[in-house]
Amino acid sequence: MVYKLYYWPIQGRGEFIRLAFEEAGAPYEDVARTGEGMGEMMALMQNAAEAHQPFAPPFLRDGDALIGQTAAILFYLGPRLGLAPQGELERLWVHQIELTIIDLVGEIHDTHHPLDGFLYYEDQKPEALRRSQGFRARRIPKFLGWFENILKRTPEGSAYLAGGAISYADLSLFNVIEGLCYAFPRAMGGLVPDYPRVAALHRAVAARPRIKAYLASERRSPFGEEDIFRSYPELDG
Amino acid sequence: MVYKLYYWPIQGRGEFIRLAFEEAGAPYEDVARTGEGMGEMMALMQNAAEAHQPFAPPFLRDGDALIGQTAAILFYLGPRLGLAPQGELERLWVHQIELTIIDLVGEIHDTHHPLDGFLYYEDQKPEALRRSQGFRARRIPKFLGWFENILKRTPEGSAYLAGGAISYADLSLFNVIEGLCYAFPRAMGGLVPDYPRVAALHRAVAARPRIKAYLASERRSPFGEEDIFRSYPELDG
Repeated sequence: MVYKLYYWPIQGRGEFIRLAFEEAGAPYEDVARTGEGMGEMMALMQNAAEAHQPFAPPFLRDGDALIGQTAAILFYLGPRLGLAPQGELERLWVHQIELTIIDLVGEIHDTHHPLDGFLYYEDQKPEALRRSQGFRARRIPKFLGWFENILKRTPEGSAYLAGGAISYADLSLFNVIEGLCYAFPRAMGGLVPDYPRVAALHRAVAARPRIKAYLASERRSPFGEEDIFRSYPELDG
Repeated sequence: MVYKLYYWPIQGRGEFIRLAFEEAGAPYEDVARTGEGMGEMMALMQNAAEAHQPFAPPFLRDGDALIGQTAAILFYLGPRLGLAPQGELERLWVHQIELTIIDLVGEIHDTHHPLDGFLYYEDQKPEALRRSQGFRARRIPKFLGWFENILKRTPEGSAYLAGGAISYADLSLFNVIEGLCYAFPRAMGGLVPDYPRVAALHRAVAARPRIKAYLASERRSPFGEEDIFRSYPELDG
């Protein structure tokens, strides 16, 4: 059975789910890549009769299941794709890491949209400058420091967050580091050396054969200024 | 066994968890209510050797389990407190609603702190005015409309989100409506009549005996301007 992923044709939050499918080699359809699929996504979002109508993309259709919220989708997919540990508490721990990554993604979005997601960046540029300052100075180090500490506690020789095998949270952390390096190359250039285990995880994920193939493929959307990670040098200090 | 909840001595995100304990009549210790407990919370947060060291409060200790992230804590507690439905997909649905409520809580926080959670409100007041405008005009209706539609789809006569029995998401929605009415009384006064099922759920939860007793007790922290929901009339339009 083919999983159906509904998301805008950008990286955005959908990318965290695409990476899980790609690493697992699981069959999935990225529905809104075509005009017809986009219509299907919009119709589904507006169908108030749908029992579990999602609040916003991304959402996943798997047979009868319709699931929204990036972290909830990954929680559902994790064991099915072989990307989550065994055991309730270990699974909740990976979920907790994922929720924290998604919080970071929200903060990254708000660096260029501090006032209103509905307005253009150009309408909130001075505010974006101020928000980015605190984000670079305090928030990036707080998040990266937390991830680094998790990696310090894993068994010797493990590059991954849950120790032992790779999980979807590793793919998500890879993606957010990739995005931060695109959006804040200067700040990240100064910071990354302080977090060697995070940097090693980023390299390890990038080198995994299926991820490497995916990143080089047409399925991977390019970075862009209609997305969460944006290259605005003025926000990079 | 007594659950240990670690959170600042304010309502904040901890309140969503306290309400679940209170509705269930479950024994819990609100650790950081005392000076000694606050020290215990800070020590735990700073203990990088802790296997599942949380990123931020709230977090929960239940025997060997240590769990952070409000929605993850409630996902764990739901079945244990009798506040979650049976079945993987129904539980994920309630979790998805909870995650969306927590997203709304984040947006409410950012109405008074659009630029930097580290700075005072007074340092970002014009920006807070602008952020609140869009929040009142577009975001509150979008969220309330989604909740209302969920309630429209539940079986006849049910006041609760998952249909049938009450779940922790109902308690959370009650709490966020309570907070919105405190922070944005004018805007909510105009909006609430458009969402009769949300208003009915709010009343139904407030009338539940244990919740009613809790709200009147000393265990319920008062609203205040060091919290997520704040009464700044200028942000209410």
